[in-house]
Amino acid sequence: MTNTSTVTPQDLSAFGPARATVPGAPLSADELRQTHAFWRACNYLALGMIYLQDNPLLKEPLKPEHIKNRLLGHWGSSPGLSFAYTHMNRAIKKYDFEAIFMAGPGHGAPGVLAPVYLEGAYSDIYPDKSLDEEGLLRFFKQFSFPGGIGSHCTPETPGSIHEGGELGYVLSHACGAAFDNPDLIVAAVVGDGEAETGPLATSWHISKFLNPIRDGAVLPILNLNGYKINNPTLLARISHEELENLFKGYGWTPYFVEGSDPDSMHQAMAATVDRCVEEIRAAQAEARRSGVAQRPRWPMIVLRSPKGWTMPSEVDGKKMEGFWRAHQVPVADVQKNPVHLKLLEDWLRSLKPEELFDSEGAPAAEIRALAPTGNRRMGANPQANGGVLKKALRLPDFRDYGIAIGKPGQIEAENTPPLGRFLRDIMRENMTNFRVFGPDENTSNKLGAVYEVSKKFWIAEYFPEDAGGTELAVDGRVMEMLSEHTMEGMLEGYLLTGRHGFFSTYEAFVHVIDSMFNQHAKWLAICNQLSWRKEIASLNLLITSTVWRQDHNGFTHQDPGFLDVVVNKSSAVTRIYLPPDVNSLLCVADHCLKSENYVNVIVSDKQQHLQYMDMDAAMAHCTKGVGIWEWASNDQGREPDMVMASAGDIPTLEALAAVAMLRDEFPDLKIRFVNVVDLFKLQPDSEHPHGLSERDFNSLFTEDKPIIFNFHGYPWLIHRLAYRRKNHGNLHVRGYKEKGNINTPLELAINNQIDRFSLAIDAIDRVPTLKTTGAHAKEKFRNQQIACKRYAHEHGVDMPEMVAWRWPF
Amino acid sequence: MTNTSTVTPQDLSAFGPARATVPGAPLSADELRQTHAFWRACNYLALGMIYLQDNPLLKEPLKPEHIKNRLLGHWGSSPGLSFAYTHMNRAIKKYDFEAIFMAGPGHGAPGVLAPVYLEGAYSDIYPDKSLDEEGLLRFFKQFSFPGGIGSHCTPETPGSIHEGGELGYVLSHACGAAFDNPDLIVAAVVGDGEAETGPLATSWHISKFLNPIRDGAVLPILNLNGYKINNPTLLARISHEELENLFKGYGWTPYFVEGSDPDSMHQAMAATVDRCVEEIRAAQAEARRSGVAQRPRWPMIVLRSPKGWTMPSEVDGKKMEGFWRAHQVPVADVQKNPVHLKLLEDWLRSLKPEELFDSEGAPAAEIRALAPTGNRRMGANPQANGGVLKKALRLPDFRDYGIAIGKPGQIEAENTPPLGRFLRDIMRENMTNFRVFGPDENTSNKLGAVYEVSKKFWIAEYFPEDAGGTELAVDGRVMEMLSEHTMEGMLEGYLLTGRHGFFSTYEAFVHVIDSMFNQHAKWLAICNQLSWRKEIASLNLLITSTVWRQDHNGFTHQDPGFLDVVVNKSSAVTRIYLPPDVNSLLCVADHCLKSENYVNVIVSDKQQHLQYMDMDAAMAHCTKGVGIWEWASNDQGREPDMVMASAGDIPTLEALAAVAMLRDEFPDLKIRFVNVVDLFKLQPDSEHPHGLSERDFNSLFTEDKPIIFNFHGYPWLIHRLAYRRKNHGNLHVRGYKEKGNINTPLELAINNQIDRFSLAIDAIDRVPTLKTTGAHAKEKFRNQQIACKRYAHEHGVDMPEMVAWRWPF
Repeated sequence: MTNTSTVTPQDLSAFGPARATVPGAPLSADELRQTHAFWRACNYLALGMIYLQDNPLLKEPLKPEHIKNRLLGHWGSSPGLSFAYTHMNRAIKKYDFEAIFMAGPGHGAPGVLAPVYLEGAYSDIYPDKSLDEEGLLRFFKQFSFPGGIGSHCTPETPGSIHEGGELGYVLSHACGAAFDNPDLIVAAVVGDGEAETGPLATSWHISKFLNPIRDGAVLPILNLNGYKINNPTLLARISHEELENLFKGYGWTPYFVEGSDPDSMHQAMAATVDRCVEEIRAAQAEARRSGVAQRPRWPMIVLRSPKGWTMPSEVDGKKMEGFWRAHQVPVADVQKNPVHLKLLEDWLRSLKPEELFDSEGAPAAEIRALAPTGNRRMGANPQANGGVLKKALRLPDFRDYGIAIGKPGQIEAENTPPLGRFLRDIMRENMTNFRVFGPDENTSNKLGAVYEVSKKFWIAEYFPEDAGGTELAVDGRVMEMLSEHTMEGMLEGYLLTGRHGFFSTYEAFVHVIDSMFNQHAKWLAICNQLSWRKEIASLNLLITSTVWRQDHNGFTHQDPGFLDVVVNKSSAVTRIYLPPDVNSLLCVADHCLKSENYVNVIVSDKQQHLQYMDMDAAMAHCTKGVGIWEWASNDQGREPDMVMASAGDIPTLEALAAVAMLRDEFPDLKIRFVNVVDLFKLQPDSEHPHGLSERDFNSLFTEDKPIIFNFHGYPWLIHRLAYRRKNHGNLHVRGYKEKGNINTPLELAINNQIDRFSLAIDAIDRVPTLKTTGAHAKEKFRNQQIACKRYAHEHGVDMPEMVAWRWPF
Repeated sequence: MTNTSTVTPQDLSAFGPARATVPGAPLSADELRQTHAFWRACNYLALGMIYLQDNPLLKEPLKPEHIKNRLLGHWGSSPGLSFAYTHMNRAIKKYDFEAIFMAGPGHGAPGVLAPVYLEGAYSDIYPDKSLDEEGLLRFFKQFSFPGGIGSHCTPETPGSIHEGGELGYVLSHACGAAFDNPDLIVAAVVGDGEAETGPLATSWHISKFLNPIRDGAVLPILNLNGYKINNPTLLARISHEELENLFKGYGWTPYFVEGSDPDSMHQAMAATVDRCVEEIRAAQAEARRSGVAQRPRWPMIVLRSPKGWTMPSEVDGKKMEGFWRAHQVPVADVQKNPVHLKLLEDWLRSLKPEELFDSEGAPAAEIRALAPTGNRRMGANPQANGGVLKKALRLPDFRDYGIAIGKPGQIEAENTPPLGRFLRDIMRENMTNFRVFGPDENTSNKLGAVYEVSKKFWIAEYFPEDAGGTELAVDGRVMEMLSEHTMEGMLEGYLLTGRHGFFSTYEAFVHVIDSMFNQHAKWLAICNQLSWRKEIASLNLLITSTVWRQDHNGFTHQDPGFLDVVVNKSSAVTRIYLPPDVNSLLCVADHCLKSENYVNVIVSDKQQHLQYMDMDAAMAHCTKGVGIWEWASNDQGREPDMVMASAGDIPTLEALAAVAMLRDEFPDLKIRFVNVVDLFKLQPDSEHPHGLSERDFNSLFTEDKPIIFNFHGYPWLIHRLAYRRKNHGNLHVRGYKEKGNINTPLELAINNQIDRFSLAIDAIDRVPTLKTTGAHAKEKFRNQQIACKRYAHEHGVDMPEMVAWRWPF
């Protein structure tokens, strides 16, 4: 252990002539001039976006009225982003390959928007932002302007599938995009601030998830510009040796490009990008030639350059370039401060706009010539508008995976294994555009049948014992890593590039990706407003190992609250399903896999559960999304005395058992049983496209009878959805209330009052005719409840007659 | 770039004689026997917990009725955990230092519970689990049993402050515990599954957050047992060189201990732990002697051992030890399968319980002698019951930081800077037990005054320009890293060991730690049921940079939904405050900093906002949590025609402006203005201890008048809280509805209908007397609204007269 550092700040400086791992200066003088001009043009455009609302080509002296009233945007990471983009452009032309660009520090959107505009891809989509002075002015003015576009790489940005508003996901997105795209290179710029986030830190392990035969490559470019908003970054302040060790440890071959001097930095970056592209292609070619996929130590680039690179080194005597102050708008108060106005004008003029644009305002021919053409332009690559490439899944008939159930409520089955077989055959039919994702839980979630067709992808070391059941294969298409973040990110990247997928995860820990869900839902909601963005496959998320069956994991594994997060997002993109049995789960899954531009959340437990619907009944029920179960109701043709409703597997079982107890005790009581599969049916149709009309809701739930609703999740969510309903005052909801520890299934239900006894007592308390006559039954139910808990505490399992309960009518 | 691996599986094997970085065999034959006996006893106890409900000492042949009816628990990581615990015990005795133990893979609780029981700490707290046969049986039986204890290191576990139910937080917890505890070593076992999570991956950077003078040390022990639930782990399947590089890259000095042969593994582990303790103490001693704190390359241990270590290598012909199948209950179906019963009995007897326990069932004297005594026992260290060490904060008078406001609604101020000054002086008075945390956002959140007293902790490299404004110091007490996960984890560890803290973060991205919040709230809820766990300081979380002022960050930065997550957790531990101005924010913060065992969520934006309450008014208002603002109401002494209510800064401003417009237009209209600071006031008092009684609610909000409620967050949350209120049918809520992009503040309000115009129109639509007479006013308000949006789109800023709006009465 060394106790002190031997690093000097000079070793880590982002300034001066280029220092690079790869030697050489491959650019001719012409190429160097052209490359630098393209980058200068990018920097000019970035400044124009942040500052100008008039005089875009600086044809006249800069005046206060040319400056936007409110200055917004992030300059700090823009030059580094366009530097990387510029050099990718050069390499695409040199080697003729397919690439897309992802900006991890998406706040530096000017650094991406600029080259997309220069290559003409922006004008292709937005013709009014044409390659002339008028279009340029519109392009400037719309940026970070009300009614205009955001300062991140939002869905409005051609070529972007990664907004970068929230940090941490660029490598997992890039990896997902590269899957099954053997000719694609995804250039993924990682910000050094972003690199401190957890999701990003573990996503360097994508080095072990790319197959050189079948997949494309990710070229990470860590832009070590040294600063976050107000702080230095950790990775910029450790020794060169530590940094190199870190990335070698993650399985990469890091190449450093460090400095600020433009000419030597262009030469170094060109040599380095060339090396990286050649190594990627060599590794892929060798693997494809030999048919042997081993794990390359893929190349990556560490680009150490100043934050706000190329800006004035000081403003008002304060250090700017290469310091955190360059993060956002680098020179403020320009309208009112003549010194700042002059400084900005000098800065803009130093970029020589008259060389960069012709008299009409179009980018100079030499600049445009640096960019590739057509779909080779990263801003026009169809991979970044995946819907145009998407092919519908070839789906086997889900009915073939259903089970015969006989009379409802008589047999038990595990709900997820038939879905596993359905997924297996979907996999078989779609071996280039479908993958299954899960954080080390697909087997636990009982979807293991899928391994019969395709195993878990694994390209790290193999041990002899792997033959004995690890289900690993170097051509596997099931992706597993104990990181919900990485799985979600890979799936998003895969979907956004036009493919299909399925993700299963434990209910309690799906909260780990709450924020990723939010961001993807926001992305989809904006895409719905952009006619040029074609629909992509829905993100299908199976939540299993649910709250009600945490028999030994206990309290920490009990949290059905992801649904509360989901319902807050746009109703145009959110769907929630709670199929209670095998056949309804298959129906729902089939529907979700065919859908587009949604996030479909399916809640279904993996354990043994009672079965209610044969396939025809399940199809009819799931098509409606909510409906009366006639076989469980005795109100035929009449208004019932009460409605018992349920959503979810265990809540449905307990609600049915309560109905049986009540009917046994009170033969004249008329109970209607309603089951909800599609949760948004409860909302008014004005709030959600799936919502029931007022009339339909009332005809199901009555206008004035007591409703006991047994819910899988937190009970308040049902009130949040149904509070506008006429009969809401009679709606009594049971659900999970954080009353858990180590419990048997029935005991956990009892603790949270979703059990049969509590529900039956609730009914007695609420149905007017039972209030007086029901006292004896209440007492009886209460005693039974106590006996059940006592049995569980004595034997460690539930009472056999409770476990063996079957629908008795 | 190398293309292929040169690793052989043998290099990565967890089997065979020990291979270790540190040479030597420091244990004498007696010490070795003693050490191994302690570990064998741990393994025996772990099996007993999983399997036995009778015959705990195997005094008679094992019979089916001795086996629990339901077998639950995780054996896989238990032996590795107790191996580490055993060797920490030995080292504590040898070197006499203070240590606590954290089990990242908390599912292996038997591996922790066992040594805690052996050292007597368990019986100290739970006397019925005594050190005799009867106590032992109770200890076995309660494990993973209904009404008993969980299979993780739950709050019920003496010595635990890290449950490990959710994975990924052990190093950040350990680091928080080590802060300001110069004599403490936190042994933190990291599971190799857990190591794949994002939060854990970035938390290796704690190597840059520990000061060798002032703080204690964290000794990470990565237990590379090779397997997760059903998969190998990534870190166990990369080359030794990559693994070593990775940890060197993260700033650690990794020492390897690899193998399975107990004797040589004990010798290697003893030598390695000795080396680590000596290096830690040497680094600390040198820094403390010289007064110069530099960053040591702290030692860590990579313990590669078989999953399920020491179990039979095969069961039913299938590989078990050193394979994923050892993860949970390693031999199933023991009650009914005589072969399995025999196998379990042989396994248990091979551990020689007759040597491990005396005839009374107490651990043998030699075994007990390995453990330290008193508070040196890791299961009895008061650091792991932080409330007993906690000293109250010395708080300056928050009133001294308030601002004079004159008449309500006349001046604007930034809400957070006075809080920053309050925090600064709290810091000054509590320089050993208070820290401020934030993901690179304390300056952005305008709390920068705190740096006047203590800067941001930084022990990585310094650059000359740091003198110009990075606010870094090697003795700084403000913790910043761009990882909400790491900040939250450090703060939790700090609080759980009896100290105090304050965390501020951007609203949209607090969802990143939804799941951590859930887990901490669950921990606190269980602690409330344990009389021996003393109250710790509340977790105080300021959510700022809120949804309504995302002027350039746009849609991705708009999400006020964290509150929807918070409300689902136990009402005993959750508190939410929305102070609308400077003085109320100070009041609330003071209250929160004095409180115990809560998570206090404070929502307050950092920008300029109108000020409403002088300090006296703020104190009165915050004490009540909700109240009528008489100055904004004109219903004095009478029943109003309507109630306008608000919660949050911008919603309050817009609601007041709407009231002014309505009063201007309809002078006879009686409006009551209610402001809510304490959000749980809206819930019934039966649901939350802060909830208003029915009578109080009705007297504030009326029983039958229209209520327009303008809310900071998603509007449905208010319905979720207030649906049981009598006047709920008249409650009309406005809030954020995912209608955002790049907008001026007023435009964003308009898009989501929380603006003054929408609210005034809502009122006209709902107050019966206005329905007919209000048509003209509605038209006028609508036109004003349109004009405001148009102005924003033309000028990029809000209309000056709207920005300059002041309360006119």
